[in-house]
Amino acid sequence: MADSELPHRPKPEAQDASAPAAEGETKSASKNALKKAAKDKAKAEKAAARAAQEKAQAAAQEANDTAKDLYGALPETEDVLPATRFSELSEEHYEKEVTVVARVDNARVQSAKLAFLMLRQQGQKVQAVIAAAEPISRQMIKYTGGLNVNSIVQVTGIVKKPEIPISSASISHLEIHIRKVYMISEAAQMLPMQVKDAERPPPENTEEGAQVDAEGAPIVTLKTRLDNRVLDLQTETSQAITWISSGVSQLFAEYMIKSGSRWIFTPKLVGAATEGGSGVFEVKYFKRNAYLAQSPQLYKQMCIAGDMENVFEIAPVFRAEDSNTHRHLTEFSGLDFEKTFRGHYHEVLDFAEDLLVFILTQLKERYASQIAIIQKSYPKAGDFKLPKDGKALRMNYMDGVALLKEAGVDVSEQERFENDFSTAMEKQLGQIIREKYDTDFYVLDKFPMAVRPFYTKADPNDKRFSNSYDFFMRGEEIMSGAQRINDIKELEESMRAKGLEPNQEGFEDYLNAFRQGCPPHAGGGLGLNRIVMFFLGLPNVRLASLFPRDPQRLRP
Amino acid sequence: MADSELPHRPKPEAQDASAPAAEGETKSASKNALKKAAKDKAKAEKAAARAAQEKAQAAAQEANDTAKDLYGALPETEDVLPATRFSELSEEHYEKEVTVVARVDNARVQSAKLAFLMLRQQGQKVQAVIAAAEPISRQMIKYTGGLNVNSIVQVTGIVKKPEIPISSASISHLEIHIRKVYMISEAAQMLPMQVKDAERPPPENTEEGAQVDAEGAPIVTLKTRLDNRVLDLQTETSQAITWISSGVSQLFAEYMIKSGSRWIFTPKLVGAATEGGSGVFEVKYFKRNAYLAQSPQLYKQMCIAGDMENVFEIAPVFRAEDSNTHRHLTEFSGLDFEKTFRGHYHEVLDFAEDLLVFILTQLKERYASQIAIIQKSYPKAGDFKLPKDGKALRMNYMDGVALLKEAGVDVSEQERFENDFSTAMEKQLGQIIREKYDTDFYVLDKFPMAVRPFYTKADPNDKRFSNSYDFFMRGEEIMSGAQRINDIKELEESMRAKGLEPNQEGFEDYLNAFRQGCPPHAGGGLGLNRIVMFFLGLPNVRLASLFPRDPQRLRP
Repeated sequence: MADSELPHRPKPEAQDASAPAAEGETKSASKNALKKAAKDKAKAEKAAARAAQEKAQAAAQEANDTAKDLYGALPETEDVLPATRFSELSEEHYEKEVTVVARVDNARVQSAKLAFLMLRQQGQKVQAVIAAAEPISRQMIKYTGGLNVNSIVQVTGIVKKPEIPISSASISHLEIHIRKVYMISEAAQMLPMQVKDAERPPPENTEEGAQVDAEGAPIVTLKTRLDNRVLDLQTETSQAITWISSGVSQLFAEYMIKSGSRWIFTPKLVGAATEGGSGVFEVKYFKRNAYLAQSPQLYKQMCIAGDMENVFEIAPVFRAEDSNTHRHLTEFSGLDFEKTFRGHYHEVLDFAEDLLVFILTQLKERYASQIAIIQKSYPKAGDFKLPKDGKALRMNYMDGVALLKEAGVDVSEQERFENDFSTAMEKQLGQIIREKYDTDFYVLDKFPMAVRPFYTKADPNDKRFSNSYDFFMRGEEIMSGAQRINDIKELEESMRAKGLEPNQEGFEDYLNAFRQGCPPHAGGGLGLNRIVMFFLGLPNVRLASLFPRDPQRLRP
Repeated sequence: MADSELPHRPKPEAQDASAPAAEGETKSASKNALKKAAKDKAKAEKAAARAAQEKAQAAAQEANDTAKDLYGALPETEDVLPATRFSELSEEHYEKEVTVVARVDNARVQSAKLAFLMLRQQGQKVQAVIAAAEPISRQMIKYTGGLNVNSIVQVTGIVKKPEIPISSASISHLEIHIRKVYMISEAAQMLPMQVKDAERPPPENTEEGAQVDAEGAPIVTLKTRLDNRVLDLQTETSQAITWISSGVSQLFAEYMIKSGSRWIFTPKLVGAATEGGSGVFEVKYFKRNAYLAQSPQLYKQMCIAGDMENVFEIAPVFRAEDSNTHRHLTEFSGLDFEKTFRGHYHEVLDFAEDLLVFILTQLKERYASQIAIIQKSYPKAGDFKLPKDGKALRMNYMDGVALLKEAGVDVSEQERFENDFSTAMEKQLGQIIREKYDTDFYVLDKFPMAVRPFYTKADPNDKRFSNSYDFFMRGEEIMSGAQRINDIKELEESMRAKGLEPNQEGFEDYLNAFRQGCPPHAGGGLGLNRIVMFFLGLPNVRLASLFPRDPQRLRP
C-alpha cells in the first residue's frame, strides 16, 4: 500500500531482539495448535504448556507496559474530550494535540516500533501513525496496527505536517501522531466487503464470476453494495449522495413553504385500488383488504376541494409494478404539490418550473463540495446544464415530436396519439434538446389527452390535447402534472371515456369532493430519487435510495 | 337568520307588481304538478300549459334582462381579474371595487329586489348584498339569492361600511355590494352536511339519534364530519388545525436542518415483522409477503451505523393495533430523529428537549391567529403551559412514581417495575406536574428496563433502569426515546433477555450493522398528530389528521 512507503515516517528505534513477535500472531498460532490437539494429544499438551507460558509472559509484559492506560478500552475515568471533526482540521492544528473519533479504514504494523492507521470519518480520510517513544510501548503499537478494520476508535495525538502529502488520504497535508487510542466500537474481523473497495463505482457490466478488476482490486457489485448497504453508506460517495437527497427534499419544502403552501399528510392506506388494480399493493387490514396509495393524487385534490388552496406532501409512494429496470423502484419518495389558480393553468406550470430551477440551482450552489466528490466516481455529476436565463425551457409535446421527426425518428404512433414517447425516444429528445438549447432540464406541455389519466383537463381549444405537462432531466421524466378537471360532470364523462365507471367502489369520496364545488387547480408529482439520479448522472436509481425496494429486493 | 335582520340593508325599490314570484319557486311548483299529472291528466295538461307559458315569459324576460352579462357562467371573454383575499380586506377598501372568489356559505332572497350572500373563504366570512338598481335586474337578484350553498363564485362589488357590524360574519366591519356574480364551481343542491353546522365542535357525548342540539341547531357528529371530511376541512377550525399540523412539521424540519441533520427516507415496506407480529400490517409483495414498518427505528439506527451521525425522517408510521380510542390511529405521521453523542446520552436528550420547546414556543408565536380561532371551539387551545425559563422540566421516572404515591395513587406495580404507567396515571401525573411546576410539557427519564424495548441501553450504574425517556404534553405521551445499545454482544444479550432470538429472520441486517462497528447514539420518535392534539387540547386525535385511519375507518 502507498502509505507504507511514505518517506516521512518516524525513524524506528533500534530493534529489541528480546521482544516477542507480534502478540496477535502468537495467539493465532496457539489457536491452531489447540485445533490440532483434538487429533494429536501430545502436541496439544506441548502447545498448551507453551500457551500457558506465553500467557504468563504477556501478563508480565502487561505489568511492564508503560502505555497500558493509553490504549484499549476507553477508561471510564477518562474525561470526555471534545472531538475535532476531520472537516475542521487545518494547518492551524500543526503541532497541537487533537482528539478525533473515526473508523479504522486500514491498520498496518510496519515494524515492532511503527504502525499506521488510516482513519475515516464520513468518507474523509486522515492518516495516523504510532511509533515507539516514551511512553508508547511496543504492545500499544501492536494493538494499534492490529485494530480490526472499520472499528470506531478515539485517537488523541499531535497534528504534524508530513514531509510530502499523503496521497491516499483525502486530507493529505497533515497526519496525526498518536498518543492515545481507545476502542469506541469494535468491528468484526471479517466483513462482507471493505468500504475502501466500495469507494470505486460498481462496474457497469460485471462479468459473471469476476472477482477483481483490471488492476487487481476487488470488484464490489451493486448487489453486494446494496446487500451491505450500511457499509456502502460509509463511502465518501454515498455520504455525498445522501446529502444531495436530503438537499432536494429540503429545497422542495423551502420553496413550498415560502409560497404559502400547507404541508399535508394524506393516507397511504386506502380503501380501494382506484388508480388501477395491477400496480397496487394489497394490505391485510384487520378483517378486510386495504391498498397502498400509488400517489397522493386523489387526496391532494380533495384537500383543494377542502379549500386548502396550496398544499404539498413529502411521502413514500408505492408501485406494485414488476419493473426491473435501472430507474424503477417499488417504493420511492414522492414530492407532491397541488395549487389553485385564477385564470390559466400556466400560473401553476410557471410555479412548478421555478420550483425545479430553484432546486437544481441551489443544489449546485449549496452542495458543490458533495457534487465534486461524487464526480470522482460518476463523472456526469458536475455537468448538469441549467437554462442560462434561469427560466425553464418549455415546448409543446408536438414540438418534441417534430424535433424527433427531424432527427429521423419514426414518430407515426405519436402523431396519431396512440402512444406517449418510449424511454429511448425521451432520451434521444433529451440529447437533441441539450445540443440545440444547451439545457438538461426542460418541460413538455400539452400532451395528447389519449395518453393521460382521466382526471386531466382537456385543452378547451383542442380537445385532442390536454392541459398537462411532464418535466425532464437529461431526457428522463422526473415529474408529471396537469390541470385537473374540477367540474363533476366533465369528470364523470372523462372517466367513462377512459373506460372507468364513476359508480365503481372507491371513487365515491373523490367524486363527492367535486359535487360540493371545487376551484380550478393544477399540480404535479416529483420523484425525489429520480431527481437525485438524473441530476448526478448516476447509472442506477438504487444508488439514490437509502434502502432501495424493487420486485426482488426487500432487504436490508 | 341574523343577517336578514340587519338594519343597514339598501332600501328596496318600489315593488313591481308585474314581476313574477321567484323563478325557483315556480319551477318547483310546476314539478309538483307534473308528478300529480300521472294521477290526474287534466290537471297535468293545465300545469304543462302554464309551465310552457312561464318558460316563454322567462325567455322574454331574459331578452329584457339588463344584467344578463353580469351573472351566471363566467364569460370566456371576461378578463381574469386579480382576486382580493378576505384576509387582505380592510377599511382601505371602503368605496372601492374588489373581486373575490369564495364559497357561498348562505344565500337568501329577501325580496324581489334584495338578496344576501354570506361568502366564505378558508373559514372566514364576509357578507355580500345585491339590490335592484340599474343595471342590476330582478333576475340577477333571484339568481344570486338562489345560489346553491357551497358553490364557488366570483363576486365583483363595492366594499361598503355597514351601518352596524355584521355579527354573523368574521369580517364584520365591511360588506360587498355586488355588481357581478359568476359561477366558478357549482355545488349540488343537497349536501350531506352544512359547513356552517360543522363550525360548532362535535358534541362530546351524542345521544343516540339526537338530530339537533339544545338550541335547535343541527348536530354534526364526529363520524359525519369525518365521513364528509372535504366539507369539514372548510370550517374555520379545520383550516386552522391543518395549519398547526403543517407548522409542527415545518418547525421540526427547521430545527433538525439547523442542527446539521440529514433528511432521510427509510423503507416502509420491510421483509420481516421484526418489531412484533401482532401490530404489523401484512402486504402481498409479488409472490411473497412484506410488512409495513411500525417505525423507522431499526433503519434510522442503521443510518447511524452507516456514519450518517445525525438524521431525521418525516413519514407515515403504521400500527395494526385494534385500538379504538380517542388517541390511536392505524396510520400517523411520525417525526423521527437519531443522533450520535460523545460522552453521555443526555447530550441527545437536551437536544430533543430543546426541539420540543422550540416547536411549542414557535407554534404559539407564529400561529397565534390560528390558535385564537381554534380556541373558540376548543377552549384549551390557547392555554398550553410552557416552562417559563425555556428549559424543559425533566425528572426521573421514579420521581414521577413518587409524586403519584404522594397523591395517594397505588403505584405498587410501578415500584416493582412490573408495568409502565397506565394512561390514567399519566394523566393524573400531568395534572400534578401542572399544579406543582406550572408546565404542560415535561420529560421523564430513566424508565425501568423491564418496560422498554430490547434495543434500549441499560443504565450502567443501575441495570434495573435504562437510559430512556418519554416526553409528555398535558399528561399524555408524545415521544418515546432512548440511548440505543451499540455493542453487538450487549444487543444480542438484551434480545435474549426479552425473549427474542437474535438469529430469527429479519434481524440479520440490523445486527450486522453493529457487527461492523456503530457509535453510541440516541434518538426518539414523535407523533405529529398527538402533538397537535395535545397542544390544542382537542378531544380526539382524528381531528388532528387530514383523513384519519383507524380499525373501522379507511374512508374517505
